[in-house]
Amino acid sequence: MKKQKVSSAVIRRLPRYFRHLNDLLQTGTVRISSSALGKSMGLTASQIRQDLSCFGEFGQQGYGYNVEKLQGEIAEILGMNRNHNAVILGAGNLGRALIENFHFEKNGFVLSAAFDVAPSIVGTQIGGVVIRDTAQLENYLAEYPASVGVLTVPGKVAGIMAERLVACGVRGIWNFTNMELELKEDNIVIENVHFADSLLALSYMISDTE
Amino acid sequence: MKKQKVSSAVIRRLPRYFRHLNDLLQTGTVRISSSALGKSMGLTASQIRQDLSCFGEFGQQGYGYNVEKLQGEIAEILGMNRNHNAVILGAGNLGRALIENFHFEKNGFVLSAAFDVAPSIVGTQIGGVVIRDTAQLENYLAEYPASVGVLTVPGKVAGIMAERLVACGVRGIWNFTNMELELKEDNIVIENVHFADSLLALSYMISDTE
Repeated sequence: MKKQKVSSAVIRRLPRYFRHLNDLLQTGTVRISSSALGKSMGLTASQIRQDLSCFGEFGQQGYGYNVEKLQGEIAEILGMNRNHNAVILGAGNLGRALIENFHFEKNGFVLSAAFDVAPSIVGTQIGGVVIRDTAQLENYLAEYPASVGVLTVPGKVAGIMAERLVACGVRGIWNFTNMELELKEDNIVIENVHFADSLLALSYMISDTE
Repeated sequence: MKKQKVSSAVIRRLPRYFRHLNDLLQTGTVRISSSALGKSMGLTASQIRQDLSCFGEFGQQGYGYNVEKLQGEIAEILGMNRNHNAVILGAGNLGRALIENFHFEKNGFVLSAAFDVAPSIVGTQIGGVVIRDTAQLENYLAEYPASVGVLTVPGKVAGIMAERLVACGVRGIWNFTNMELELKEDNIVIENVHFADSLLALSYMISDTE
């Protein structure tokens, strides 16, 4: 599918569409109008039609959307059928939480390996994943390439570890370190997870109701 | 300060303004134009002026913004000076990661307590915070009220725990459980953290460059 230039706001909504369609599928909904889908997501019908028009023609006048078909199309657009490999760097509390509880496979990813520097955990398993020595990162990725590196290392080594991942061919970094990464290569996708942004939005909303 | 109705998109950008202004302060920047601030944040100058105009008059024609002053104003708008109390429910990997590594106090919150049901960790300390028995939640909050509850419990008890928090006077829930919370009270602010949305946006962006 040839994609036009899509705004960041639309990209951010795509995973929400996917989630909502998934919920609809699980409750047995076969089709849905753009206005009903919008209502459940806090969007207008025209915004939904406009968002989806970036990627092609999905709905049908007078029928709405076929939920299963639209979910499949959005999964395809999101690249969920490509079996991207991911590796995690840093098996501290947050790394462990992701390894044990985050469903990489439900999101189209294969968590292929996890790395840490602590001798006490290298060689142990977390949720069936062996923790490897970070010193072996380059050897491992040479043999088993990965598209995405998940950074759950301490902030002070975030930049160095990101560069090592990129040198090994990783094209996207899921960055939980709270550090701004400035990489030498400029075609690397960095997705920052800033917990603080989320808590501060909550702070605003509860302060607003006081 | 009397606030007008502010769009969700603007609310989401406020913490980013705060972060960027913080970075500027730390590099010793005293003032900045809306276009320079916009450039560093990937926004246009007019978008920045429009965002900030929701809250009052901050910049000065020909001068721009005083970085320290604007940061202080945004902190105030975000409710960062109110010392909101927060409690964490669930001291598993993710709960531990937040207790040990997340800077609640830098975001204007006091993490006053953490709760879990596991006898093996109740009574232990994580990062100086005592893990209390979830059975004591109501007694504790009656004595030490909190504005925000952080939910890092298993999804299957998310709804029950959210209701218990709300019954104790909590007004905002920072929800990491990946479950949609449907509460009886309708004036409770729920802030969902969906890791999958972030990974799927990354997935889209790396798939797009293939």
